[in-house]
Amino acid sequence: MDPWRTAIVSSSDGEIRVRGYDVTTLMQRGTFTDVIFLLHRGELPTPEERRLLDAILVGVADHGSGAPSCATARLAASGNRGALSAAVAAGLLAVGDEHGGAGSNCMTLIADGLARAGREGIEAGAAARRDFDEARAAGRRVPGLGHRLHTSDPRTPVLFGLARQAGRAGLGIAYMEALAEAAQTRGLTLPINIDGALAAVLHDLGFDAPFGRLIFLVGRVAGLTAEVAEELSREKAMRIKVPVQYDGVPPRDLP
Amino acid sequence: MDPWRTAIVSSSDGEIRVRGYDVTTLMQRGTFTDVIFLLHRGELPTPEERRLLDAILVGVADHGSGAPSCATARLAASGNRGALSAAVAAGLLAVGDEHGGAGSNCMTLIADGLARAGREGIEAGAAARRDFDEARAAGRRVPGLGHRLHTSDPRTPVLFGLARQAGRAGLGIAYMEALAEAAQTRGLTLPINIDGALAAVLHDLGFDAPFGRLIFLVGRVAGLTAEVAEELSREKAMRIKVPVQYDGVPPRDLP
Amino acid sequence: MDPWRTAIVSSSDGEIRVRGYDVTTLMQRGTFTDVIFLLHRGELPTPEERRLLDAILVGVADHGSGAPSCATARLAASGNRGALSAAVAAGLLAVGDEHGGAGSNCMTLIADGLARAGREGIEAGAAARRDFDEARAAGRRVPGLGHRLHTSDPRTPVLFGLARQAGRAGLGIAYMEALAEAAQTRGLTLPINIDGALAAVLHDLGFDAPFGRLIFLVGRVAGLTAEVAEELSREKAMRIKVPVQYDGVPPRDLP
Amino acid sequence: MDPWRTAIVSSSDGEIRVRGYDVTTLMQRGTFTDVIFLLHRGELPTPEERRLLDAILVGVADHGSGAPSCATARLAASGNRGALSAAVAAGLLAVGDEHGGAGSNCMTLIADGLARAGREGIEAGAAARRDFDEARAAGRRVPGLGHRLHTSDPRTPVLFGLARQAGRAGLGIAYMEALAEAAQTRGLTLPINIDGALAAVLHDLGFDAPFGRLIFLVGRVAGLTAEVAEELSREKAMRIKVPVQYDGVPPRDLP
Repeated sequence: MDPWRTAIVSSSDGEIRVRGYDVTTLMQRGTFTDVIFLLHRGELPTPEERRLLDAILVGVADHGSGAPSCATARLAASGNRGALSAAVAAGLLAVGDEHGGAGSNCMTLIADGLARAGREGIEAGAAARRDFDEARAAGRRVPGLGHRLHTSDPRTPVLFGLARQAGRAGLGIAYMEALAEAAQTRGLTLPINIDGALAAVLHDLGFDAPFGRLIFLVGRVAGLTAEVAEELSREKAMRIKVPVQYDGVPPRDLP
Repeated sequence: MDPWRTAIVSSSDGEIRVRGYDVTTLMQRGTFTDVIFLLHRGELPTPEERRLLDAILVGVADHGSGAPSCATARLAASGNRGALSAAVAAGLLAVGDEHGGAGSNCMTLIADGLARAGREGIEAGAAARRDFDEARAAGRRVPGLGHRLHTSDPRTPVLFGLARQAGRAGLGIAYMEALAEAAQTRGLTLPINIDGALAAVLHDLGFDAPFGRLIFLVGRVAGLTAEVAEELSREKAMRIKVPVQYDGVPPRDLP
Repeated sequence: MDPWRTAIVSSSDGEIRVRGYDVTTLMQRGTFTDVIFLLHRGELPTPEERRLLDAILVGVADHGSGAPSCATARLAASGNRGALSAAVAAGLLAVGDEHGGAGSNCMTLIADGLARAGREGIEAGAAARRDFDEARAAGRRVPGLGHRLHTSDPRTPVLFGLARQAGRAGLGIAYMEALAEAAQTRGLTLPINIDGALAAVLHDLGFDAPFGRLIFLVGRVAGLTAEVAEELSREKAMRIKVPVQYDGVPPRDLP
Repeated sequence: MDPWRTAIVSSSDGEIRVRGYDVTTLMQRGTFTDVIFLLHRGELPTPEERRLLDAILVGVADHGSGAPSCATARLAASGNRGALSAAVAAGLLAVGDEHGGAGSNCMTLIADGLARAGREGIEAGAAARRDFDEARAAGRRVPGLGHRLHTSDPRTPVLFGLARQAGRAGLGIAYMEALAEAAQTRGLTLPINIDGALAAVLHDLGFDAPFGRLIFLVGRVAGLTAEVAEELSREKAMRIKVPVQYDGVPPRDLP
């Protein structure tokens, strides 16, 4: 087999380098968030970039045991107590377009919308309003808007505030705010949720779309490990009994 | 179904609290590493504890694309490009007793060894030497020692150095150093690897054994997401061809 | 990388052979159950062996949407509708010592018990009674006995009946029946569950312990795919709301 | 939480029914393939339907240790030997659009193509040729055609032959054959692969698109369990060393 190529980590006996930096130096002087940024971007973050990434990771780490990812991890742990990595992995598998994964779809929406706006010579806000109306007319959900619990997601203004404070608020945030405004003008309660907020900020920081989902996985795994640890320490095996109501065909005999 | 009990996160419309703290405050003033500590311990870390946790998370984040977890994630991504969380989860599933998971087994070894030492009134070092010999006599691998690449794991002295500097080096480190010394005295090249090093430090910080594996998962997921992103951006689908040699029964016909 | 060795499948342009047999012949003349047996044992089953394997696979395929594996798969599908393999994989991750995985532990118990009986020159029944008492005295759960729903698992007598009819009931079944009798004599309601029943039958068919868990995975995946398909066709995304009650520290401010 | 609704399995103390049939009767008189069909369609198959489903399941069960799903499972097992369900689940996670999952995409292509043909009053063959040209013009891969090993997939003619023999060859097969013919006419070597073949047959049997991927998962899990069992019984932990070549930035110091 040909060797696999990589530009991420090199290692030899006694040495490990991440994007060129000695891992032991990073252990002494870097934070985990620095290295998350470094692994994905190839360079260390500025203090402002680190602050924004920390805020995103903290914001998505956990949202309660009942979130699909957390509940999935606890259910898996309930039947398979010995396998910690299996339960955590099961939790990650609940992350997709509908839960935790809207960030990357939203980054694509932003990038496409802004690119089209550029071609047509219109502003970010006008592009967002048009994209919103087109999506509604086509019956598509708009990623990054709406939350099943929050009528106003408290994490969004904080994240946008930090971006403004850092001087890193750009067209991504402008686009998302116009999108939410379009919803409100049309009488809909669709606040920018954390996925939409992180999508805007990551766009303005120069990340590409897949990172909008990957960063959620990195942050959420911290919550999943805590949820699994709590399940194992507080609860008995197989304690979860999901109530089920059968509504299929009545009892019958084989022919 | 009875409600699930949790002491980790509470949420209501417009508010999310992690171990009692408002998540928006944590987003502004905490680091991701603070919140990892908080989620698992219930309290925020001291600066020294944060430094040690950062060093561990950085130390385990990635060790090259060929590590079982990273290679597993890349292989899964190669056949299933659209599913980012699936590839990352596959990578976590390669983490177990043999790869990345020795930390928790080693924490159990340390805790059991020190407990027995306490009961018998002997020192940590003497306990470690006895445990080492007992394991070897029984043909058991000693978790936390040895590495398939490094004759001396460069991350171990750095981590122990940080613990000493922070005034948090305790019986865990003493035990592991005696274990490695026992190996050396008996003519074996079995350096303390990163799993053994983090086990010692986490023991001295008061963590329980499962956290030795969970922290590896949290750190490694950062490497896995970067490896998956690189696979998708640099390589074509299905590019990995594992060479296989068949050595089973020759061609035969059904009876 | 050295080629991987395998004795399972060989393939070249235009030809695939499973354990030496041309796959196209197997497709025309074999059943899926034949090939499951062939893959694991290297030879095709006799009609009696096929009947027993079919009975086991049918018996474990599904036990209701509320079983941990099924509920985990549905929860994952609820948040990640686009990723069918992720939801099914999540369901498998709930299979472990406590759910669906007792078969392999029970096969180890049977094999160890019978080996010791052989060394000591006692009968299977006597060995089982002694093993039962030793496990109870040590506070260990005995794998293969007890069910959270069934006071008497209806699948067990049917499977044992088929084994007797096929002339393949051996020491495995004798051991498990003695184990259940020991429980009853001691006043405990611990029927032989499907894991214990399949363990006994697979032992008598000459399978080794890991197969007791692997066969459960093969059978259950059929139920998981059906559960996931039903979730996606009948239910909306994110419809599952697990009720959660927070009982941790009250709201507090950062220092 | 409201009870979950299901029409698949009902169970109560001493009784389990699958789609209305007592599981103990199915264990005695049904095959595993019968129950796979029953779980997904709600009715038992005719002998012809059972034969076709068996042929598909056998055809996809395993294609060699180097297939992405099998290699992923073995890699995961190599680092995490104790967790059988984790390794099997990891293998399933490699199944997606590029590997093993083309069946469902192909079923959608067939259904859409035939529906459009119906609306426009043209034949299946003409629809397929047009769809092929449109896909090529747009630079899209056509699902169900081409294989990285086989210039002619030996499983396809066998499966189509069985369908014809059973009198169940319909528009699905006609469509796929016209698609392959269009490729050939345009000078391309794109044989109908097993995904395309099973898609055509399942379409003609009345299954919907997701089943094209789910059936692959059910069949492949049999190969994955065998691959994992072989890895654990023949190989040492961590034996797999993927060769890696670093081509990133050279060593550098932190600022």
